[in-house]
Amino acid sequence: MSERDERGGAERLVVIGGDAAGMAAASQARRLRTPEELQIVAFERGHFTSYSACGIPYWVGGTVTGRDQLIARTAEEHRARDIGLRLRTEVTEIDVSGRRVRAHDLDSGETYWTSYDKLVIATGARPVRPDLPGIDADGVHGVQTLDDGQALIDSLARARGRRAVVVGAGYIGVEMAEALILRGFEVTVVDRGEEPMSTLDPDMGRLVRKAMTGLGITMVSGAGVTGVRTDGAGRVRAVVTSDAEYPADVVVLGIGVRPETTLARAAGLPLGARGGLLTDLAMRVRGHEDIWAGGDCVEVLNLVSGQEQYVPLGTHANKHGQVIGTNVGGGYATFPGVVGTAVSKVCDLEIARTGLREKDADRAGLRYEPVVIESTSRAGYYPGAAPMTVKMLAERDTGRLLGVQIIGGEGAGKRVDIAAVALTARMTAEQMTALDLGYAPPFSPVWDPVLVAARKAVAKVRANPSRPRVISH
Amino acid sequence: MSERDERGGAERLVVIGGDAAGMAAASQARRLRTPEELQIVAFERGHFTSYSACGIPYWVGGTVTGRDQLIARTAEEHRARDIGLRLRTEVTEIDVSGRRVRAHDLDSGETYWTSYDKLVIATGARPVRPDLPGIDADGVHGVQTLDDGQALIDSLARARGRRAVVVGAGYIGVEMAEALILRGFEVTVVDRGEEPMSTLDPDMGRLVRKAMTGLGITMVSGAGVTGVRTDGAGRVRAVVTSDAEYPADVVVLGIGVRPETTLARAAGLPLGARGGLLTDLAMRVRGHEDIWAGGDCVEVLNLVSGQEQYVPLGTHANKHGQVIGTNVGGGYATFPGVVGTAVSKVCDLEIARTGLREKDADRAGLRYEPVVIESTSRAGYYPGAAPMTVKMLAERDTGRLLGVQIIGGEGAGKRVDIAAVALTARMTAEQMTALDLGYAPPFSPVWDPVLVAARKAVAKVRANPSRPRVISH
Repeated sequence: MSERDERGGAERLVVIGGDAAGMAAASQARRLRTPEELQIVAFERGHFTSYSACGIPYWVGGTVTGRDQLIARTAEEHRARDIGLRLRTEVTEIDVSGRRVRAHDLDSGETYWTSYDKLVIATGARPVRPDLPGIDADGVHGVQTLDDGQALIDSLARARGRRAVVVGAGYIGVEMAEALILRGFEVTVVDRGEEPMSTLDPDMGRLVRKAMTGLGITMVSGAGVTGVRTDGAGRVRAVVTSDAEYPADVVVLGIGVRPETTLARAAGLPLGARGGLLTDLAMRVRGHEDIWAGGDCVEVLNLVSGQEQYVPLGTHANKHGQVIGTNVGGGYATFPGVVGTAVSKVCDLEIARTGLREKDADRAGLRYEPVVIESTSRAGYYPGAAPMTVKMLAERDTGRLLGVQIIGGEGAGKRVDIAAVALTARMTAEQMTALDLGYAPPFSPVWDPVLVAARKAVAKVRANPSRPRVISH
Repeated sequence: MSERDERGGAERLVVIGGDAAGMAAASQARRLRTPEELQIVAFERGHFTSYSACGIPYWVGGTVTGRDQLIARTAEEHRARDIGLRLRTEVTEIDVSGRRVRAHDLDSGETYWTSYDKLVIATGARPVRPDLPGIDADGVHGVQTLDDGQALIDSLARARGRRAVVVGAGYIGVEMAEALILRGFEVTVVDRGEEPMSTLDPDMGRLVRKAMTGLGITMVSGAGVTGVRTDGAGRVRAVVTSDAEYPADVVVLGIGVRPETTLARAAGLPLGARGGLLTDLAMRVRGHEDIWAGGDCVEVLNLVSGQEQYVPLGTHANKHGQVIGTNVGGGYATFPGVVGTAVSKVCDLEIARTGLREKDADRAGLRYEPVVIESTSRAGYYPGAAPMTVKMLAERDTGRLLGVQIIGGEGAGKRVDIAAVALTARMTAEQMTALDLGYAPPFSPVWDPVLVAARKAVAKVRANPSRPRVISH
């Protein structure tokens, strides 16, 4: 008897990937459709479902005490809601015309085809692992999945020394550097860029560098890694650049991630310039009526630049899953796009951004005025008032808000939300100056720092009107 | 020689009131106009200029250590910028047709007229002081000005016992209750309402009551004060209600404030239903070309209800002053209105609101769906994640956001800004569900609590469509 016969008249939804996007889609579809109406099968190649990948650095650093705390919903909980979850089972092929996927049970070795009426691709991301000598050595770790996190923690425990090298100084690199400091390691961060956090403009990244150096982290900039030196047993000994060698008992790769779209590419599904799946606003893969995709394997529309962007973030993955599950379940929902908001921290320093950096604006053909202001997170006289720096980009002439970057102490980071909403609403800096934001001395100076930046941006936009070249007749 | 002769061809700006609105106006006008172009005279009846009235509770409580910390700009600093500041000088009359004001020097007793070309009224607010027996007794204090704050601190120092009664449980009452606890007093709050913080809906106010009780504050609700009992020397002994008597060595009135518009009323200037001056969008007093008004003495447009509202807050006063100074100085600026944002705290509990409460929406003729959700300020697994409750009102059928109230731990309060910007942009709850807000485990759950509330509001709006009565033909 075929699988289709077994399930009677029910439609069958197959989900590839058991983390945020995939399981949010499955759960939402289940809320809308009974098992008699919709059978749901979800494949996950790892050991865990619905976990917070963003929490891994805090688990490694010991701030979060146990792995299970990062799991929002276990396999058992999903199964109790009639979601047929198959762990440790990797999908190895999508047969689009045959409406089926091939699954490989990693433990039994069994391989089989299973059919779908509707398919959700939520294959996530994979850490960039440059093809360098020694990169696969024992002691070199990516940190994308809970399994990766566990492997790193085990590796830290058996490391012979206390020297850690983090390659890359983006969000993951910076968070992992802090985590390793908390674990008592001496940390060196080797980064190709001139300043850490290339998601910020370099003038703001410089403030992050200063904070990291202040934590005792050795920052090596403008350094391309050429290889990893290993010992006779194949264990990492050092990270090698063209100029120097950095001894390492453990190495963490924080170079960033790429969409995991190997399956999608092989199946001929449409991919964007950054390798992510392209979807419509309902999160349906373009040109495919019954295939949806979401999470770290898709590209999303940036509402400010008007262009596709790759933004692997758990908060988007959850929203995608919600939208997909609603549509798969017969409802209607869309994901309009992102404005590029991200927030992070290194110890007490909060780091946030939304909208476009200078180079994003250049690339999008936008002309802008950048301003930077210094203020404090609370009224200057209130205890705990921490310095904060706000950079704002406003469009030339129109004054439309294009982006905000914030570096500062406690309470600085989430202020980026003010700008995120303003960007979504396409506000001008001038409109922002009148925003009625929460004010009381323990929370803000009487002019919120974001408004101070907006005022400065208004003045600069007005002071520098574009002068169209006069054409003589 | 008359004053006009003395100043040659310069225009003369007279400012009544030397705190936020008045001095911000004077400072901004001075930035735009030289002393040769514009002479500026500012009258302040107290001893101080440009201070943070909102900071007084923290000074009284000892969190802020000195009075001078609350002064943003001293009289000397203003004078150094060619602002002719006259402290301890009360304006006692405005002669609109004669374009002059009468000033009374409180120290010398001298009274004189001074003329103006342009006038700024920034007379602020006065604490409500009900006409009750004993209300003017020694030891009964309002806390509106720095002079008031100093008087209270002196009174606390010489109090014979440690029993304090706060009358009123609005922002000032709640903040003063905490301040007095910090000063080691036993505090009783006597309030007319059923729940503290009438700027919130009662279901949210109840959470504030719980927190205050937890601090050891005795909360007496639904109790109207009928008088203050004094001893033979005229010093306060107890606060009396119709049911009981509350022994008090010191009493703080936190019943709220009213616009200080005695002068404006006498001069025949237009006042609103709440007694505040009515202005146009440029903050000019309606019908008066050369008179501006701002700060705690004016009513402002609430952009959500479409009606005038009285919102005495330093942040608005500063914006008003900025707008007035720009216009007086020959530039152009407007104050479009408020959405009613306010944030406060009682110890670790943050309290915030924006937009309309249920009764505001009723009064404005709006129909709505209220929802309440519970979440946490950070990812649930991240240390310091504090419970937070979000209440949201969305308009029936359209789903437009009407208001948000938040009660929670650290990081909860300033999230109200998300809603404040969304209200300004007239977003729907549905649009809000897709907002790209800052997410990382130390900052937020993967669904920001404000978005969780928005999702619930969307569902409730959809579930309860209005059913127009069918009219038979």
